[in-house]
Amino acid sequence: MKIPASLEKLVTELARLPGIGQKTAQRLAFSILRHDDATARALAEAVLQVKEKIRFCEQCFGFAEQALCEICRDGRRDGHVICVVEQPPDVYVIERSGVFRGRYHVLMGVISPLDGIGPEQLKIRELAARLEAEPAEELIIATNPSIQGEATALHLCRVLEGRAARITRLARGMPVGAHLEFTDDVTLSQAFSGRQDFASP
Amino acid sequence: MKIPASLEKLVTELARLPGIGQKTAQRLAFSILRHDDATARALAEAVLQVKEKIRFCEQCFGFAEQALCEICRDGRRDGHVICVVEQPPDVYVIERSGVFRGRYHVLMGVISPLDGIGPEQLKIRELAARLEAEPAEELIIATNPSIQGEATALHLCRVLEGRAARITRLARGMPVGAHLEFTDDVTLSQAFSGRQDFASP
Repeated sequence: MKIPASLEKLVTELARLPGIGQKTAQRLAFSILRHDDATARALAEAVLQVKEKIRFCEQCFGFAEQALCEICRDGRRDGHVICVVEQPPDVYVIERSGVFRGRYHVLMGVISPLDGIGPEQLKIRELAARLEAEPAEELIIATNPSIQGEATALHLCRVLEGRAARITRLARGMPVGAHLEFTDDVTLSQAFSGRQDFASP
Repeated sequence: MKIPASLEKLVTELARLPGIGQKTAQRLAFSILRHDDATARALAEAVLQVKEKIRFCEQCFGFAEQALCEICRDGRRDGHVICVVEQPPDVYVIERSGVFRGRYHVLMGVISPLDGIGPEQLKIRELAARLEAEPAEELIIATNPSIQGEATALHLCRVLEGRAARITRLARGMPVGAHLEFTDDVTLSQAFSGRQDFASP
């Protein structure tokens, strides 16, 4: 196929992104070609800027543009409740929901012996030090409900026992919009064992 | 949401691309952040290069890095058969299939009165001039089988009559893998009216 070299190169670079196959990359490249020059430059600039400016928060290891991220710098956030997540993007998922007003701690991964990742590769020591410096009332463990996520949660619970007044984890059960008919057995059994009383009106 | 400014900016720029919503843009931005610096720079560079280097071929209006595109410069291509397409990317769809060894002519759009696009906005005059300079044996009209594409094909057929020994268009019918049950009436009627004899073995 006689696709010009610079176009081919852009398609190759775009196809490195997750979920972007060859065909989608081509469609995106053609669309970038149709952009005016300023828009294309803005995209290129944004890619460079993000790599240059974003680093990890020294306290919680979320994304930050300064030593501390905006959440760690925000005095209105409750520093006595810490939500532990696997990866920096997880922070924004929880932020988007608006349900949490405490601070975060990013583990930077999960325990996964098959990938050679043990507890010492994660930011667990840093979390312990953080709790040492400022005791927390509650530690909410929000790792993913996967095998590795669960193993990591159990490990955290064990090594951090006594460092926080309360260690909790997110509820397991049926997600909104689910159908009983299509719910898997594990979720169903968790929904049963975690069943709650109807709140009195 | 306290997403850092440079990350937010990248998400905004990525979300301008077709088919990329806010969530996908975020996923792509996070992945770019995980890239090593060289890969991110390569992407930014590729975006800039493509805008700088790609222009339209002076003969066929396909994408080119020089005055003429690679296909127009290729002496092995049959210049007596010209395939007319709507947009530059259409050229690569046909090239990928490997079924066509002639040259192309890109109209740069279709006749669409609602969008204020008439025949004079398209590269029809240029096609006529091209046929004037070098008569074609066949003109294959490969506009999309949409209302505008059909209207454009009919218009071309009318104004270019006599300029090429033969003016043809792509066959209409059932695509490979289709099911009779799910085929729309128009396609089915075209498949009937265009039915072909079984070739003798």
